[in-house]
Amino acid sequence: MSIEKFFNPKSVAIVGASTQKTKVGYEILLNMIEAGFPGKIFPVNHKAESIEGLKCYPDLPSIGEVPDLVVIVVPAPVVPSIILQAGKLGVKAVIIITAGFKEVGKEGLALEQQISQTASQYGIRVIGPNCLGIIAPSRKINASFGGDLPAEGGIGYLSQSGALLAAILDMANATGIGFSKLISIGNKIDINELDLISALGEDPETKVIAGYLESITDGNAFVRRAEQISATKPILLIKSGGTSVGAKAASSHTGSLAGGETAYEAGFERAGIIRCGSIEQQFQYAEAFAMQPLPAGNRVAVITNAGGPGIMAADAIEREGLGFAQLSQATKDKLAGFLPAASNIQNPVDILGDALADRYEFALDTVLDDPGVDIALVVLTPQAMTECLPTAEAVARVVKRKPKKTVLACFLGAEKIAEALTVLRAGGIPQYRSPESAVDVIKAMSEHVRWRTKPKRVVRLFPVNRHKVEIIIERHIRQGLREVGEAEAKDVLEAYGFVTPKGSLATSPEQAANIANQIGYPVVMKIWSRDIIHKSDVGGVKLGMRNAQEVMDAFDLMMYRVPKKAPDAQILGVLVQQMCKGVREVILGMNRDPRFGPLMMFGMGGTMVEVMKDVSFYLAPLTADEAKQMLISTRTYKMLQGVRGEEGVDIEAIAEGLQRLSQLVTEYPQIQELDINPYVVGPRGTVPIAVDARMSVEKE
Amino acid sequence: MSIEKFFNPKSVAIVGASTQKTKVGYEILLNMIEAGFPGKIFPVNHKAESIEGLKCYPDLPSIGEVPDLVVIVVPAPVVPSIILQAGKLGVKAVIIITAGFKEVGKEGLALEQQISQTASQYGIRVIGPNCLGIIAPSRKINASFGGDLPAEGGIGYLSQSGALLAAILDMANATGIGFSKLISIGNKIDINELDLISALGEDPETKVIAGYLESITDGNAFVRRAEQISATKPILLIKSGGTSVGAKAASSHTGSLAGGETAYEAGFERAGIIRCGSIEQQFQYAEAFAMQPLPAGNRVAVITNAGGPGIMAADAIEREGLGFAQLSQATKDKLAGFLPAASNIQNPVDILGDALADRYEFALDTVLDDPGVDIALVVLTPQAMTECLPTAEAVARVVKRKPKKTVLACFLGAEKIAEALTVLRAGGIPQYRSPESAVDVIKAMSEHVRWRTKPKRVVRLFPVNRHKVEIIIERHIRQGLREVGEAEAKDVLEAYGFVTPKGSLATSPEQAANIANQIGYPVVMKIWSRDIIHKSDVGGVKLGMRNAQEVMDAFDLMMYRVPKKAPDAQILGVLVQQMCKGVREVILGMNRDPRFGPLMMFGMGGTMVEVMKDVSFYLAPLTADEAKQMLISTRTYKMLQGVRGEEGVDIEAIAEGLQRLSQLVTEYPQIQELDINPYVVGPRGTVPIAVDARMSVEKE
Repeated sequence: MSIEKFFNPKSVAIVGASTQKTKVGYEILLNMIEAGFPGKIFPVNHKAESIEGLKCYPDLPSIGEVPDLVVIVVPAPVVPSIILQAGKLGVKAVIIITAGFKEVGKEGLALEQQISQTASQYGIRVIGPNCLGIIAPSRKINASFGGDLPAEGGIGYLSQSGALLAAILDMANATGIGFSKLISIGNKIDINELDLISALGEDPETKVIAGYLESITDGNAFVRRAEQISATKPILLIKSGGTSVGAKAASSHTGSLAGGETAYEAGFERAGIIRCGSIEQQFQYAEAFAMQPLPAGNRVAVITNAGGPGIMAADAIEREGLGFAQLSQATKDKLAGFLPAASNIQNPVDILGDALADRYEFALDTVLDDPGVDIALVVLTPQAMTECLPTAEAVARVVKRKPKKTVLACFLGAEKIAEALTVLRAGGIPQYRSPESAVDVIKAMSEHVRWRTKPKRVVRLFPVNRHKVEIIIERHIRQGLREVGEAEAKDVLEAYGFVTPKGSLATSPEQAANIANQIGYPVVMKIWSRDIIHKSDVGGVKLGMRNAQEVMDAFDLMMYRVPKKAPDAQILGVLVQQMCKGVREVILGMNRDPRFGPLMMFGMGGTMVEVMKDVSFYLAPLTADEAKQMLISTRTYKMLQGVRGEEGVDIEAIAEGLQRLSQLVTEYPQIQELDINPYVVGPRGTVPIAVDARMSVEKE
Repeated sequence: MSIEKFFNPKSVAIVGASTQKTKVGYEILLNMIEAGFPGKIFPVNHKAESIEGLKCYPDLPSIGEVPDLVVIVVPAPVVPSIILQAGKLGVKAVIIITAGFKEVGKEGLALEQQISQTASQYGIRVIGPNCLGIIAPSRKINASFGGDLPAEGGIGYLSQSGALLAAILDMANATGIGFSKLISIGNKIDINELDLISALGEDPETKVIAGYLESITDGNAFVRRAEQISATKPILLIKSGGTSVGAKAASSHTGSLAGGETAYEAGFERAGIIRCGSIEQQFQYAEAFAMQPLPAGNRVAVITNAGGPGIMAADAIEREGLGFAQLSQATKDKLAGFLPAASNIQNPVDILGDALADRYEFALDTVLDDPGVDIALVVLTPQAMTECLPTAEAVARVVKRKPKKTVLACFLGAEKIAEALTVLRAGGIPQYRSPESAVDVIKAMSEHVRWRTKPKRVVRLFPVNRHKVEIIIERHIRQGLREVGEAEAKDVLEAYGFVTPKGSLATSPEQAANIANQIGYPVVMKIWSRDIIHKSDVGGVKLGMRNAQEVMDAFDLMMYRVPKKAPDAQILGVLVQQMCKGVREVILGMNRDPRFGPLMMFGMGGTMVEVMKDVSFYLAPLTADEAKQMLISTRTYKMLQGVRGEEGVDIEAIAEGLQRLSQLVTEYPQIQELDINPYVVGPRGTVPIAVDARMSVEKE
């Protein structure tokens, strides 16, 4: 969509402009005037002649021209009529500031629906209602009641909380942080977060997109769009309200491990969105991304005039898993040639407490010349001789000379460094209040670089037998069955290239022994019932049965015991199965998220899945690289590689399993949950076996 | 020790007081004068008549009286002679500001030793050298070159980095944070962190002890003293340099999992020390602990004038595992009676964007009256109608009326809330820049409350056979053997009440079969060699041998295979052992830390210990409660309780094992490392078995 009308209007009408200084309708008008908006402003108020020297109009039609943008501040019940008026007039962009809609109940919701209908009928795009408005410093637009117009800058901000935006504006005005656009999205009856990241993504003024969201309307579309934008513009989001989401009851391991937040996290990871834990952190990140180039790698050099903060930075670098730059001999020689003998010419480079600005300038220049340094962090403590302001100027000079490397500052203190901070900001050098905060920012930057340099996503498609799957799924949906029994779930898996253990259903001890004789010993026995989900909980699993007698005994025992623990379950028999001797048991799973679609899970398998919680998630469809990354990001991975002289397992085969499963659940949106557990894997070259499977389906 | 002379001197001499304004010797004198020190100040400088209107003395003796405190700022080589002079004169307290001692090399170290000797000969206590000095606002003492005298307050700060202290002072002076004492400890040739936490612990002005440390001289003594102090005064420490410590090579699982930082963490946990991740976090904590009472519990209520920040607070409360206060019906009724209908009277209490100060005052008053609320967090965003300053005043009034409950504020913004923040600080209400920071502080407070309310530490002593242990340890030390073989390690464990599997050493296949026949099948076989630490790595372990033939085959196979993988190992035979069928394998371990003593470990056992890293640590000696907590803090614990219909294991028996091991390593400081792995545990009432053990000893 185009939001050009919103951010580049030639004329703005404010319907509900007020003469009373305590009213929002007055404040918005005043903010537009004080912002220095170069276009025309039309206050609409049928009671006033003029406000703040501007002629008032009784209604929109009497203006005599069609305003590019209309801001509405009249009471909620009146809004629909204004929209209709605007529509008839040919207005295409409206901001509804007014509150009192769906957030207050049914009547408000009805008003919203009425507005939506009229707006879409006349092709009007709407921001709000129940919002703070919009701000665009470079266009001198402050169509909001959030506060003064902030400085121009590269941060585009969208917020689902108007009050938060007001607080952000106040903070920004105190520190001089600049913005390209600020948008309060309110109840988002029309324009939502997806439209706005798209618009900000295309906006040449916006270098970084940041936002506060409580919900995302269309998770899937948002992820796909954000993924494209992140390739050139970082997106920094606060997503709150996580803890109350995802209360949907789940019967699979995957479902119960994947809370609502997991899908958001997987979606954000896929899209390269940088998730922020607080407004503080978000602005720390935003400033660095907006001001500095992305680093080429993650090797950090620290320059400091004090040992303590240097160690703190080094500790944080190691803790965050960043690279600690190894300075070349040439760099060290050059440093040694100029710095006093007591200096430390290793990283962190300690230029001593009496360092003046020249020493900082020389050290930073020299360190940035080293090809082994991607990022420099300049730490300063205001000691007796420290030249805070000239040092900031020196750092700014170096940054101007060497714009390709990433430089961050951590000037500690307050009053003594106040002027220096202004110089740093003007020089495009982000400044942090502690070494740890600065390193946290570096970590976020280097993680984003890692995301951007990932191989291109290519999803492999395996030849499969779709016909077999369709029959099973359709029958279940037709009969209203949610849970697909183990045998049929395995048929589905086989159709997608999985191997399952040999075995058949027995309905008598003798038949069980016959099946076992054919398979060969040892065998596994499992109760077969659609009503029993966790078989081992009810004594419905026996492993390692070594002969016909044991098999028959086990059969009768189950028939005696299981009904006691699960009296309502209809028991169809006992599955007699080949016992798979793999080296390790893992779990492959999927849980379909209502917003983001199929969420894949990998982890340590067996009955301990939910206890150990050693699992990883990613959104389907998976590439080979993503499947592999899912493995790598668990602790189990080390075990799979082989420990203590044990042989490792076939990692590639597991990754392929994940991709096949990903293909299955992508092609069949009816599949709601799917666990393959255990997925028994052996040494390289052996075929993993899907020993047990649980699957549920629902009409799309 | 008494530091009274340092902080309550009637007279201070400054040796090296300078007339040159750029010199430290001038700055310290000026700082003392400007602080308004009410006692006598004697500048000592043999070249000047007077400095800043104060008469100068050529040397200490010519002052004509004994100054209570002497501050030394002369060059390093001159310092020893001044110390001697001071000693002869009867001076008892000296601060050496001068740098150029052990931090610059051997010569400096020699000077330090000379000073130490003279000082101890004359009974002089020394702070420094290489330090910034000391500050005590209430006594008008600023014997430092760190900056202006800060406000009086309850925070006592000690720092191993002078530069950091200077930065902290600058920050404190900008925000008005108050201190009782600030001490730069420098090279700590005499007075160290232990002396100072003791002194601050006894200091009635100090409500909170905070500090920055790079090393702790005597970890054990520090922990013991800190533990006493923490019972009444919180200790907040930044400990840096963690990442380079602990490079000692370890051969046990416990040793390799316990890095240098683990011991610090275990020591801090024992002592109730609150570890801070950055200066920012430390001051956030310090202000809350200094200004507000500790909460009675962890149930938090949030009052806000905006939904977004309220949700952010609620998210953080849930994420940190704090209690979300459930307001009583009476509270909700009362809130509903006064607040507008659209307000949310559930926690978080949303009093809406148009809330004035009176609504905040009423809501906070009401919420604090609820017995189900321990802590209230007041969130404010500066919206159009918000009365920032009157709201701060209202909050301060409520806090004054209800001083027993914990109240924190999170006023978002900057300029609009600046005046309000001054009022909050004056009212003793700590203020945070984001809901997440405030909740992080609440978490720290409630964790400290948990620590304080732990049961009294009582270490159980088990009757043991010390004689047997002494013989084994002494023989190894006499013979210079570090590793104790498995058999003797088990003898030691048996002497402390552990049960080990039945078994004996076999030197031939036939003997192995005989032993196995006596024990009963199945048996386990393990290669026996002092030189082989990880037996399974070299094919030296066979499990589940079911008959004499299998035993004889396994014996010969080991004799053939093991020497190929470990050609230098002297093989003494094969241990034939009862196969223990427990339900779970855990590890009990100990690694002796050079600073903190025996560090106990518990975790999931077997060969996966180092892969899964599901372990917990605590310092010995362990109480029953601490042993239990070690179990609880692992993921393994849930597994031990029994999952999916499986029976749980005897938790108490494991905890007892940890206590017995703790007693053993406490009574024998020669034991350096000890792993019991696997420690096979069964259902309640069964005796756990120490299946394998590794132990090393060293002369004390």
